[in-house]
Amino acid sequence: MRVEIWTDINCPFCYLGKERFEQALTEFDHRAEVEVVHRSFELDPRLPADESGPVIAKIARKYGISEAQAAANERGIGAQAEALGLTYLTEGRDYGNSFDMHRLLHFALSIGKQDALLDALYRANFAEEQALFADTERLVAVAVGAGLEESAVRAVLADPGAYADDVRADEQEAAQLGATGVPFFVFDRKYGVSGAQPAEVFAQALSQAWTEREPAIQTIGGGEACGPDGCELPARD
Amino acid sequence: MRVEIWTDINCPFCYLGKERFEQALTEFDHRAEVEVVHRSFELDPRLPADESGPVIAKIARKYGISEAQAAANERGIGAQAEALGLTYLTEGRDYGNSFDMHRLLHFALSIGKQDALLDALYRANFAEEQALFADTERLVAVAVGAGLEESAVRAVLADPGAYADDVRADEQEAAQLGATGVPFFVFDRKYGVSGAQPAEVFAQALSQAWTEREPAIQTIGGGEACGPDGCELPARD
Repeated sequence: MRVEIWTDINCPFCYLGKERFEQALTEFDHRAEVEVVHRSFELDPRLPADESGPVIAKIARKYGISEAQAAANERGIGAQAEALGLTYLTEGRDYGNSFDMHRLLHFALSIGKQDALLDALYRANFAEEQALFADTERLVAVAVGAGLEESAVRAVLADPGAYADDVRADEQEAAQLGATGVPFFVFDRKYGVSGAQPAEVFAQALSQAWTEREPAIQTIGGGEACGPDGCELPARD
Repeated sequence: MRVEIWTDINCPFCYLGKERFEQALTEFDHRAEVEVVHRSFELDPRLPADESGPVIAKIARKYGISEAQAAANERGIGAQAEALGLTYLTEGRDYGNSFDMHRLLHFALSIGKQDALLDALYRANFAEEQALFADTERLVAVAVGAGLEESAVRAVLADPGAYADDVRADEQEAAQLGATGVPFFVFDRKYGVSGAQPAEVFAQALSQAWTEREPAIQTIGGGEACGPDGCELPARD
């Protein structure tokens, strides 16, 4: 069974949602047969590549609310994170363009290290003081900390085309599947869960998708075919 | 919508089934939105790479029937092919190991020429006198005739590992989907059609899979999420 999770590193509910999903997955009887793939969804794809800055000030500006109000919102998310056992810095977090991170997550997928890299990116962005965005050296250090090879990471970052189509393809697919925000979880391309729902909702989706995975397809049989035993040979004479 | 067709070049009903499916596809209103991918299924994966020989003698040997009986079976398939407007030589066809052809079909898929190559392989095997199996030069000529670049074809053939995993992955997937023979058609991973069924069956499968393609997934909404408009911000104060 395959679970795909559309996500953005700028998205606190993606950080929380991953944890809640993983709580459900840990309890799931067939967890060893569940493959998890993280997919790209930039919350703000039009952001210039080198723009970054404090989240609270940006939210206040963008929505015309006070910084106090924006900060209260962050503290609300922080309380939810704490309840999940996650560290969440409610002040000082930056926003920024995440395209290069998504490219790197696709590279990490190709070498089996995507989940480790995403955890490291979330931790760097939500739980550590040092800014993550618009700082290539910081990004390299986080990726290396997640077990990626430094020269390979630098090569991907230096080539703007590397895995760029994969990021865009994920984003198109999200739109086709009806996702307008993240996190967005898709179970075997059959069921979707939108948002950082309680672990119980993920448990139910895992269970339902698992139950319905057999038969994989409904087949109309009876046509003439060839198999290991031949091609519809007539009976012996 | 996506239709996947598991096939082997050794399989006459695959040759016929492709034609019947395409008759249905030509009449299908949404044919422009149907993507067709051909997938690998070796009828006899244990055949030595360099073994090939006359089909009729092999069938007679393998099933303990007379060559006359095996030839009658070929003529029966030939009559069906003729009814579809396909040339089919009922004598002189060889069998052989098709692994390299499947590798080449995966390469052709990566450059958008898979359908043309499969048609050329079927034609070479079923409609042309010259043997196709265990003859690299003949295979190269057929591939070049289908629009592939000669040097690229030779490079794929010279590297036994090229696209080999793709062939094996297709075969594993066929088994998972319940295919025991070919042709095996899968519509959006939802419906299967086994064998070279009448065009009407394919038309019905296309139509049913199309009708059910929306919504792509059933989604449980309502979780806290971030979108282009922000992360569940509280109302203005």
